[in-house]
Formats: sequence, structure tokens, C-alpha cells
Amino acid sequence: MTRLKKPSVTGTDWIPRLKKLLPSGVVSDAPITCREHAGDKWFAARAPEAVVRARTRGHVVKTLQFAHRHNIPVTTRGAGYGYVGGCVPVRGGIVLSVMGLNRILEINREDGVAVVEPGVITKELQEQVRARGLFYPPDPASHAHCSIGGNIATNAGGPHCLKYGVTKNYVLGLEVVLADGTVVRLGGRTHKNKTGFNLADLFIGSEGMLGVVTQATLRLIPHPQARACISASYPDMKKAAAGVQAILGGGFLPSALELADEFTLRAAREYLGSDHIPKGKAFLLVELDGSRRGLRAEGADLQRLIRKSGGFDLTEAHGERACEKLWDLRRQFSQSLKATGLKKLNEDIVVPRSRLVDLFAHAHTLQRKTGIPVACFGHAGDGNIHVNLMIRADDPAQVKLSDRALDALFRQVLAWGGAITGEHGIGLAKKPWWSLAADLPVRRLHTLIKKALDPKDLFNPGKFV
Amino acid sequence: MTRLKKPSVTGTDWIPRLKKLLPSGVVSDAPITCREHAGDKWFAARAPEAVVRARTRGHVVKTLQFAHRHNIPVTTRGAGYGYVGGCVPVRGGIVLSVMGLNRILEINREDGVAVVEPGVITKELQEQVRARGLFYPPDPASHAHCSIGGNIATNAGGPHCLKYGVTKNYVLGLEVVLADGTVVRLGGRTHKNKTGFNLADLFIGSEGMLGVVTQATLRLIPHPQARACISASYPDMKKAAAGVQAILGGGFLPSALELADEFTLRAAREYLGSDHIPKGKAFLLVELDGSRRGLRAEGADLQRLIRKSGGFDLTEAHGERACEKLWDLRRQFSQSLKATGLKKLNEDIVVPRSRLVDLFAHAHTLQRKTGIPVACFGHAGDGNIHVNLMIRADDPAQVKLSDRALDALFRQVLAWGGAITGEHGIGLAKKPWWSLAADLPVRRLHTLIKKALDPKDLFNPGKFV
Repeated sequence: MTRLKKPSVTGTDWIPRLKKLLPSGVVSDAPITCREHAGDKWFAARAPEAVVRARTRGHVVKTLQFAHRHNIPVTTRGAGYGYVGGCVPVRGGIVLSVMGLNRILEINREDGVAVVEPGVITKELQEQVRARGLFYPPDPASHAHCSIGGNIATNAGGPHCLKYGVTKNYVLGLEVVLADGTVVRLGGRTHKNKTGFNLADLFIGSEGMLGVVTQATLRLIPHPQARACISASYPDMKKAAAGVQAILGGGFLPSALELADEFTLRAAREYLGSDHIPKGKAFLLVELDGSRRGLRAEGADLQRLIRKSGGFDLTEAHGERACEKLWDLRRQFSQSLKATGLKKLNEDIVVPRSRLVDLFAHAHTLQRKTGIPVACFGHAGDGNIHVNLMIRADDPAQVKLSDRALDALFRQVLAWGGAITGEHGIGLAKKPWWSLAADLPVRRLHTLIKKALDPKDLFNPGKFV
Repeated sequence: MTRLKKPSVTGTDWIPRLKKLLPSGVVSDAPITCREHAGDKWFAARAPEAVVRARTRGHVVKTLQFAHRHNIPVTTRGAGYGYVGGCVPVRGGIVLSVMGLNRILEINREDGVAVVEPGVITKELQEQVRARGLFYPPDPASHAHCSIGGNIATNAGGPHCLKYGVTKNYVLGLEVVLADGTVVRLGGRTHKNKTGFNLADLFIGSEGMLGVVTQATLRLIPHPQARACISASYPDMKKAAAGVQAILGGGFLPSALELADEFTLRAAREYLGSDHIPKGKAFLLVELDGSRRGLRAEGADLQRLIRKSGGFDLTEAHGERACEKLWDLRRQFSQSLKATGLKKLNEDIVVPRSRLVDLFAHAHTLQRKTGIPVACFGHAGDGNIHVNLMIRADDPAQVKLSDRALDALFRQVLAWGGAITGEHGIGLAKKPWWSLAADLPVRRLHTLIKKALDPKDLFNPGKFV
């Protein structure tokens, strides 16, 4: 972990006053607490001067009013499971944790809505709505640990977003505290709403730079009756990518469509033993959901399409347990990469789907040129492939080399009309490429909006706007 | 049609200069052209001083630069098929028509995107992508006449939005010209993108008050292999609403779930002859889509659910032609209401789904109290019911009475946690209720954003912000 050594812009003499303003235990400047709130899963960190562990909206309001009056930066954080250093308090000041706002206030089956606080863990919500026959689709890989608030801050995605869309497609209403402590309630609890501007969407994905979400009303849909998965090996990535196109072209919109490349498979074979891991140089996992009876028929149709495109060693799974077994394999790819002992730089780039083969080839070239192993897997259906550079983090030369490799990767992705981040956000990790990804008029528009909502630049300062 | 008689704030001496700035034929101040661009399908209208019929982005840029310099209001319009007077140039000045920007620039099957100009007619796009096996789901009732630009301005919905979501769920990227003529390109052509704030979404649904869209990159999904429809009669609305809940509770997310009430059915019987129109006091239309074989099985399951909830006289249709026949019936409800000779005030309110029965009962009470017939039908699945007040438009007393009835309706809808508009927008029609629907902090936030993007208040002035 790299500790950023930036001087405090605020000093610490305001801390006693803030402590007086809020109930005992809410504000802490204990070094251990500050260190615990210094960063996320990315490698940079910086301890704030104080941590506010808000338990109510009132605590958030008071904190923001205080910060506004005294010009103290406020960096809001959820569970701290981001991958881009988005919640690192670069300029110090206050880290405002909303993990104490962790109640599921309502799950309403008839209305198809859940009302939650931002500290609710995504998986907990998913399980609770599932028990009522409902479905909250956004499923970031870290769903067992990450929070709804963090998901909203990054407009989080996941494998099921191919069919179901990302977090913003499930946010009906938001309660947001603005920079000066004003509380606004945007949107509502209806599944459609055209009252005024789409202001809730402005806060979704704003990475803590425009306001603090204290409550969200989420759209729930009927839980599909059943799911089915098919996995297949391919002799090469080109055929696998053609398989992806054949499936979508055949009128299927799978609930997930995942690809893994050769390096990933090789790492998995070494880690798990080769007899557990499929043969071939590319691995495809397709998930369908729908009615129990319909899925049997669809599975057979899909198998035909996959075989025709060159897939072999097909496995078809029906029902929760069998499907989860196939997904476990997919999940273990990540584990296998970790087991290499190398540091995984997980880049969630997105390419237009027609560029999948080019992307995998480009990653291969990067590996050859730099000597850094590159493992690619992810959400092929929407072109959102996780390109993992496997580096020796203790070797400064390799860290430098990886920066150059990332630069080449991002430039190529942008040249293809792609995006440097699909679901993780810009944070600190991608800040160096922000001006490459967003041209001057777009950056100016960001500044305009930021200034309108946070004129003192106190929300998560030092990030991309 | 009510012609608003507001004095011009701009005079007309600027028109010759604007004409010089743009190619011949682009600018017109002919009274007939101005009258043709005075309003939409709502009843208020006001002719602008001049009409700019832009054919290129350059025309838009030059017009906005000119307007910005000389403080002339600009009201952008698409096909003029809005229902709320959103494009009525209340303060005069320029009406900027983008209907000449009407090219489909690209339909890319592999990437699943279409790049279009705002003047493209929605149905034309739908048909062209359909021919390539792709699907653009947003389907406002006026899709044969309305434009993509108008759909974006109002974040348009339609019956299929229950399963597929509204227009904003299908906009990947926007090219927008800002108030001073700056061109910004927001989002992109990837299906996922977390680069910066959700700024494209800010312009979607902004009713021409924040910028002018000159190009949109839209997300296309695989066209479902097949569709099936089931219609049913119900003895009363309570049972029909329970049927809606039973379907959703059974793990079905239909591609449409429509309800019509007793008044609507009665009008249809009178207009079309009673043997064409289903019996009962409520009519349900369910559409499913998916794989050919799956749908047969699902249809049988659904029939069981519907019967169990009290539905009778079920008709099940498979395939395009048979389904369209059932939809024609649904569409003729609108025709039948028109045939009454009364003016239809179509209010696209939304209620939380648990309030469907209450809403229909409330509409019935309104009818009893005011003597104004009220016909309700629409998208029951997402609670977006079109409440149609059938008035004699030439009777001032009845117009006044209808205002009071709408007031009572909107207040009740808001008290239930509903919204006064689901897909049409605020425009002029709902402006009197804007401050009821949006509290002070929300209105202030709108003003803040409006001022940041349009500091001179030139875009569509006189509307809700």
C-alpha cells in the first residue's frame, strides 16, 4: 500500500468542535480509525484528520453544514470495496462513513420497491428481496462486501447487467444531502417518473463529488422462475468471440455472457489442477433465465449455436446449485490469479463488442512487449472485459512498466471508441487518463456542474473534477 | 386550440441577420410556417417570430450562438407530437426544428448500436433495426409520428418499458449543443461506461431546457425470437389488479401488462359494436416475449394464473399477426374515446402498483362528482395509467371543472407517493402542479442546474424552471 504524504489543508483544531456537535462515538480522530478509513482495494491510501461514522441522516447534515462553514474537505465512503481509490481522502479533512446507515427500511412486493440506507450490503439486500420472490439485478463481483451507497457512487455493474442494466436502471428515488447540508428528495417510488430533470441520475456514478446519498428507493422486478447455464471451451478467442455474436444474433439476450482467455485458464489449471479446468484456449459461460420449461428448450437451441461456432466440451446446468457450481469455476479465475503471488491490476475497460477479438489480441501483444502477464476475463456480452495486469508490486521497474502498458491499453481502447472504465469509476487509478477519455468541452461541463453543486470544492477533492 | 397572446420579448428586427447567417430556406418568418410551429398535440399554441429548420449540426450551432449573443429565446422541437405543450414557444423568439436532421447514420449489429439524428421517426428506426434482428424497445403510442429527439427530450416510455425500461435506458451517447453553441459529446458507443458523471442523462427528459441534441448513439438489443399475447376480461377492476399482482408475483416480467376500465370498454362497445369488444368491467392484455418454444409453455402457465385471479374469456395469440390483432383492440380504445366527440385530456399519472385499485376507484368518484366522464387505461405493470378526462372543450364551465378535477386527481396521486407524469413530461399542461410535485429544495436544485447550463434562460423559457 502506497501512503500518500500530502500535507493537511485543514489542520486539526476543528476536530473538538465537530465532536461536540455530534453524539459521542460518531467522530473519531484515533489514528487506527483514521488509518482504517484511508483507502479502498486500490493501493494508494491517505488517512483523514477525522472520521465521522454517521448513523443518521441528521449526522450527515450536521457534518456537511460544519464542513461547509469551515471549508473542510469531506470524502464519503461506503464499504471501501472500490478498485480505483475513489474514496481516498487525498486532501485530508473528514472521511464520512455511511456504513452506520445500514437499514433496509422497506421491501414492498406489490409496489416492487425497496427503500434502503446506503450502508446496506448489496448481497444482504439481494437475499432479502429474493426471499420475497423479487430480484435486484446489479451484481458487482464484490456484492458480499460492497454497499448500495458505493454501488450508487460508482453506478456499479456486474455480469447480469448485460440483460438487466446497471445500478442506475434500478434507482427510482434518492435522498441526497447537498454540500451546504440541504436535503433533497429526487425521483420517487414509482417505476416511471417524468417530473422534472433526471437529477437522481446526476448523483449516481458521481463518485462522492456532488452530494451524499442517505436513502435510496430501488426498483425490484419479479425474480425469474429459474436459471440455466451453459459453459463451453473454444480452440481460440476468435471463435469464442464469434460464438458471442452468434448467441446475440440468434435472438438471445442472456442474463450473463462471460469470456476468459488463455492466460486465465492456464493460471486456473496450475492453481486448481488441470482436470478441474476446461480445455481449450478460451472459455465461455452463458446464463439464461426465465420460465422453468422455456429454459430447457432454449438450452438445446443455445447448445446448437455454440457448437456451430466451434465450442466444445459443453456443460449445461439447470437450477441454482448446478449453476452456482459453474459460476464458482468462473469466480475461481480471480482466486487463481491471486495465487500467482502477483499483484493484479484490474482494469474494467469496455470496447464496442465488435472489438473483442482485437482487445484480446492487443492484451497478448502487451504481454509480449512488456513481459507483464496479462489475464483477460469478464463480461463479453457488453464488451466490458477485465484486463488484469499481473505485476510484481515490490519491483519499481515493473510498476513503471505497468503504467506504460496501461497507457498503451487505454489509448487503444479509446481509439476503438471504447471506455477506460465500465463499472469501477475513475477515482485515483484512472485519473491520469481522465483528460484523454474526456475532451475539453466535456471536462468543462463537469466543472460547471461541480461548481454549481459544490462551489467550495469540498466533496472528495483531488479527484477527476 | 387556445392561442396564447403573449407579447414578443424580442421584436423581429434580428430576423434578417439570422437569415443571412444560414443557408436560404433554413430560416423562415412566414406566418404559415410560424403557425405550423406554434404547438403540439396539447391545446395551447403561440407562434414564434421565426422558425429555424436546421438540417445540420452547424445550423444548430450558428442559431444558438446568434440567439445567445442577442438574447433570443430558442424553443427546440421535434415532430410536435407531445401531449403537454412542451414545445410551445411561450416567450416567442425562435423555434428550432431538428426534423431536418433525420438521418440514421449507422446501425451496427455487432456492436448493438444505432447512431441517429434527432429528427428520425421512432417507428422508422424500430423497423430498420428490426430488419437486422435488433430491437429498440421504447415505444410511445405515437411512435409512427414522434421523433427520437422528442423521445429523448421527454424520456419517452410506452407499454414495453415495463420489461425494457424507458428511453434513457437505451441512450449510450449524446451529442449536445449547449446554450453558447459549444458542442459536447457525452457517453459513447459502449454498453457500459463509467467515465465521469452521468451527464447524458441530465439532458434526457430535460424538455429542451438545457441543450439541443444533434446526435444520439442508442443501445440495441437482440430482437426476441417471438412474442405471445393473452387478453382476458375481469368482472371488476379489483380482480384485474389482483391479476396483475399474481402475474408479477408468479415470476413473470411481461413485455407489456395493460389494463382498461369500464368506461373505456363501454365507449369501445358503442364505437366498434359490442360483439368485437370483450365482456366484463376490466380488460387485461399481457404480452410475453422470448424463445418460440418457451412461450408456449409460459402461455399455459400464465392462463392458469389469470383464470385463478378471476379472469375469463381468455384469448391467447402467438406470432406477430395474431398479437397485433389483440393490440389493435387496445389501440382502438383511444379511437373510441375520440369518437365520443369529446376532448380527451390524457393524463399519464403514475401510482405505486399497490394503488391501482384505489386509482380506478378515485377516477370513478371524480366522474360521479364532476359529471365529466373519466376513462382509464394504460400500463398497469408499472402503475402508469392514462387517466382521460373527456370534456366538451367548447364549454368554458366544463374546462374550468376539469381543471378542478385534475387538481384533485394530481393531489391524490402525489399523496399516494405517485407522480403526475410518467412519460409525457411537465410542459405547460402540468406546469400549474409543478410546485406541488417538486418541493422547494428540488425546485432550487433545478434552478441551480438550469442557471449553470443556460444562464440567460433562453432555452424553452416560460416552462417549469
